[in-house]
Amino acid sequence: MTRPTLKIVKIGGKLIEDETKFTEFLDDFAALESPKILIHGGGNLATEMASKLGYKTQMHEGRRITDVNSVKVITMVYGGLINKNIVAKLQARENNAIGMCGADGASIISTKRPVKEVDFGFVGDVEKVNSGFIGSLLEQQITPVFSAISCTKEGMLLNTNGDSVAAEIAKAMSVEYKTKLIFCFEKKGVLANPKDDLSVIENIDGEKYKTLLAEKVISDGMLPKLHNAFEALENGVSEIILGDFKLLKGGSIHTKIVN
Amino acid sequence: MTRPTLKIVKIGGKLIEDETKFTEFLDDFAALESPKILIHGGGNLATEMASKLGYKTQMHEGRRITDVNSVKVITMVYGGLINKNIVAKLQARENNAIGMCGADGASIISTKRPVKEVDFGFVGDVEKVNSGFIGSLLEQQITPVFSAISCTKEGMLLNTNGDSVAAEIAKAMSVEYKTKLIFCFEKKGVLANPKDDLSVIENIDGEKYKTLLAEKVISDGMLPKLHNAFEALENGVSEIILGDFKLLKGGSIHTKIVN
Repeated sequence: MTRPTLKIVKIGGKLIEDETKFTEFLDDFAALESPKILIHGGGNLATEMASKLGYKTQMHEGRRITDVNSVKVITMVYGGLINKNIVAKLQARENNAIGMCGADGASIISTKRPVKEVDFGFVGDVEKVNSGFIGSLLEQQITPVFSAISCTKEGMLLNTNGDSVAAEIAKAMSVEYKTKLIFCFEKKGVLANPKDDLSVIENIDGEKYKTLLAEKVISDGMLPKLHNAFEALENGVSEIILGDFKLLKGGSIHTKIVN
Repeated sequence: MTRPTLKIVKIGGKLIEDETKFTEFLDDFAALESPKILIHGGGNLATEMASKLGYKTQMHEGRRITDVNSVKVITMVYGGLINKNIVAKLQARENNAIGMCGADGASIISTKRPVKEVDFGFVGDVEKVNSGFIGSLLEQQITPVFSAISCTKEGMLLNTNGDSVAAEIAKAMSVEYKTKLIFCFEKKGVLANPKDDLSVIENIDGEKYKTLLAEKVISDGMLPKLHNAFEALENGVSEIILGDFKLLKGGSIHTKIVN
């Protein structure tokens, strides 16, 4: 028996903040045929919460430092508030879902990023995805919903890049499943001109990627997304697309990563 | 093959707040033979967080009203921060655990408490425990860790009494398992004199319970605990004990609920 393709969807924080778009996204995600997995960030909601609690966000050259208070807020906001609300909303749409972080079922084990010039704090790099456990949920027709928090073997919760989490899950699951990785964010895809939302590059292969990198067309936020995408493609993931919240329904213009 | 007894442990919020005792509790819980389930509250941590965020806690005759901000804070603090930290700490103790609220895997479905004289807000009464799914986790040697949050069929997250959640899970699981329900809290058991911590009543049967009720010996917080305990005992749960954090190691004085 051929299994249906496993759809792994990463949704960006800015989409979650927009209630109308997010509701439409959840409708479309709920309508996707199983098996499927959702990975979410939380955008500015954690920063807003940290600010309300009087925690200062430390930055280094535009990148956030995850100090002990930050990881606490992220665990509350991403791991609790957003994650449980997504699961509840999927249950209301008759999708049996389960919300997890990397500690749950030892599903995403990471190591704390080593300190080099800068100590980025409680940040994790994914080491191992427990594909067996995730697979056992999928076999029960349950949709895992992951917040981008991983856990070390020693029980330390770590803030983790959501795009990396999605790519690592996709790579691990592609041993047993044909997998499709979908990055949903606020743009229609990778843009040739960041100021022109319609300048979507529809296909990017390895050569094109190198050219885009050399020409510095790819902006900061897009760099890890594309890096992760190509790594996933090289490691067994069948199809990778990037685009906005209308992507799940198909039809809309988007970027496809190809060999 | 006879399955080992399923241990269902409810830990009270005041124990969670005491880091030394809580660490000892987690060591002992981790040492318990599987299968086992943990249910936790969060004590004053949610109230403290609400206060930091400037949310007013509404009370009615000493009972909290769970308004929209309260349920948000509870989802963050109980469902996120405390729940994920317990799971991470169990993973560090080589216990594979998974943190859930009632929405996850549709594990604890409730109805919103009907409004009578007072509207207690987003408070749930447990309707159905998904024992099949919980059992599938136990069979994989995974320990479910529940925050006391349930979910309606319509996807509404509801604050739920932790003792009731523990009792309802115990009742549902006792169809397939021999179950032991353990309430761990800040006292050594049910006290004959609330001011004397050593006045533990070691055995309470149905007759004794009626007498204690009539004599108004049982204090407010203990009423739902005992009510739940007797209901669980009448519905298939094999053994029910109440006591402090040393209960898991056995040996310490405690209260046993008997037929």
